[in-house]
Order: sequence, then structure tokens, then C-alpha cells
Amino acid sequence: MTPSMSVSEVLESALYVQDLSAAEQFYTRILGLTLYSKLDGRHVFLRCGQRMVLLFNAKATAVSAGGANDAPVHGATGPGHLAFAVPLSEIDQWKEHLVEHGVEIEKEIHWEGCRSLYFRDPSNNSVEITSPLLWRIPEESILPPRAGPRPR
Amino acid sequence: MTPSMSVSEVLESALYVQDLSAAEQFYTRILGLTLYSKLDGRHVFLRCGQRMVLLFNAKATAVSAGGANDAPVHGATGPGHLAFAVPLSEIDQWKEHLVEHGVEIEKEIHWEGCRSLYFRDPSNNSVEITSPLLWRIPEESILPPRAGPRPR
Repeated sequence: MTPSMSVSEVLESALYVQDLSAAEQFYTRILGLTLYSKLDGRHVFLRCGQRMVLLFNAKATAVSAGGANDAPVHGATGPGHLAFAVPLSEIDQWKEHLVEHGVEIEKEIHWEGCRSLYFRDPSNNSVEITSPLLWRIPEESILPPRAGPRPR
Repeated sequence: MTPSMSVSEVLESALYVQDLSAAEQFYTRILGLTLYSKLDGRHVFLRCGQRMVLLFNAKATAVSAGGANDAPVHGATGPGHLAFAVPLSEIDQWKEHLVEHGVEIEKEIHWEGCRSLYFRDPSNNSVEITSPLLWRIPEESILPPRAGPRPR
């Protein structure tokens, strides 16, 4: 047997959406992710920091196109979940930002030493914004250094 | 309006599973994730590097327990997708490791300058192991430094 092995990090996270264009607008314009590539009717691939967020139309990914380089089929229905990391000190600013963009804060939970904002993307996926502190991950270990206080 | 804002990083990725125990065994023993916490019948939370992988029983998370600190409901059915990052130089060793643990490699795709292994978790989610190079992310920017060649 090979010795014990561990994958190093999560690289791609996927969500399934009904309307790819609406999802692209939501994740790029409101949450600030960067468009990496897209295929009309099938997917929108976004970069978030050092990771990828893949938005799929499950109706397209659940059937194989038969190509040699096609990834295996997958595709879920019903609301999924994804959480994004921000500095704890920016949660208030995020709340204001989301409300100003017409995003309803479905719930706000105060954890011990942390806070989470929960809201829905246009396909009803449950999206969360919180600090890595929620999982006892030091902010400096995954968040990029800030040049200073953000302009308001 | 608040100025343009961007979430910094993905923090939590979720998958839905039918058998939480089988999923826990698969992700901890074969892929090497670390158990963070669990709640029988509802979820298993795993740490992977500097991120969290949340495995949920959708039947439990799709209904609200009504608690003040309960996260909003979510829960998908059908195969989801998640990709893990490893060094490109370890893909061969991972292939051997998976096969030795009885995991069938559903597909192997050779990308330009990269490779991906695709296989299924016990709940039929499509899991991928690849290098961050797939997304033009330098390996050193997200993978922990290795002390040297891994023992075989």
C-alpha cells in the first residue's frame, strides 16, 4: 500500500444555477469574483482569490457530450451552499454593500468571536460571508494583506 | 453606494451525501482530510489545508430546526463536484493510492501542462484531484512546501 496521503487544498467549488447570466452578474458585480471563462448554456468559471468557483447549469453537465476531454457528468438540484472569507472587520461594510445592491440578508449569526451573513444567490443557493476565524483559521493565513483601511 | 468590493477567498465548500459515515471514512482515510466536528445524522465538517469541506445530509439540512443560531436551510440532490489540489508531480502516486484503496478512476484527462483524476465518492459526487496549474495558479501559491521527495 502507498503510505498515508493527504490532498493539500480545496481547488474548485461548484454550485448549480438555473440562470448562468444572472449568476455571473451576481458573483462578479456584487461579490467581486473574476470571470475566468464561460461556455454559453453550460458553465461560468470564476476566480476567487487563489481558488475557483464553478457555476454549472446542471441540465447541461448531467449529460455527457461524449468528448474525450469531457469531465464526468455531475449536476445537483436544490440549493447548495458556499461560504466566502472576508476580514471580520469588514462584515458591517459587507452588510451595507449587499443591502445597497438589493440583496436581502436572510440571517445574521453571531458566533463566539465571529459573525456570518447569509443570503441567497439568484438560484437560491445559500451563500455565506464570514471570517476564517469561524473555523479557527487565522485571518492572515488565508486573507491577502490589506494596504490599510478600506475607503468608504 | 459602497465602493466596489470583493470577497477574498472561498472558505467553505459543501457536498451532500447519503451516508455520512461512509463519506467521513472516504474523505479522511483515503483523501486525508481532517475531521473537525460532526453531528450525527446531519453533517460532518472536515478541514482541508486552509479551507473547510462540509458534508451534509440534505434531508436534515433542508428543514429548519428553528434555532436562533441555525444556518438557513439548503440541501441539494444529485452528484455535486469538488476538486482538490495536489502537486502535479504527485498525480501518479495519487492514482496508485486510489486504486489500492479500491477507488475506481472514472476518467483521467490530460490538459495542456496538467492532469486530472476523476473518481466518485460513496454518494456519487464527482471528485477531482489535479494541480492548481490547471487554472494557471502557481503550485507554490497554494500548496504547502514539501520537505523533500515523499517516501514511497
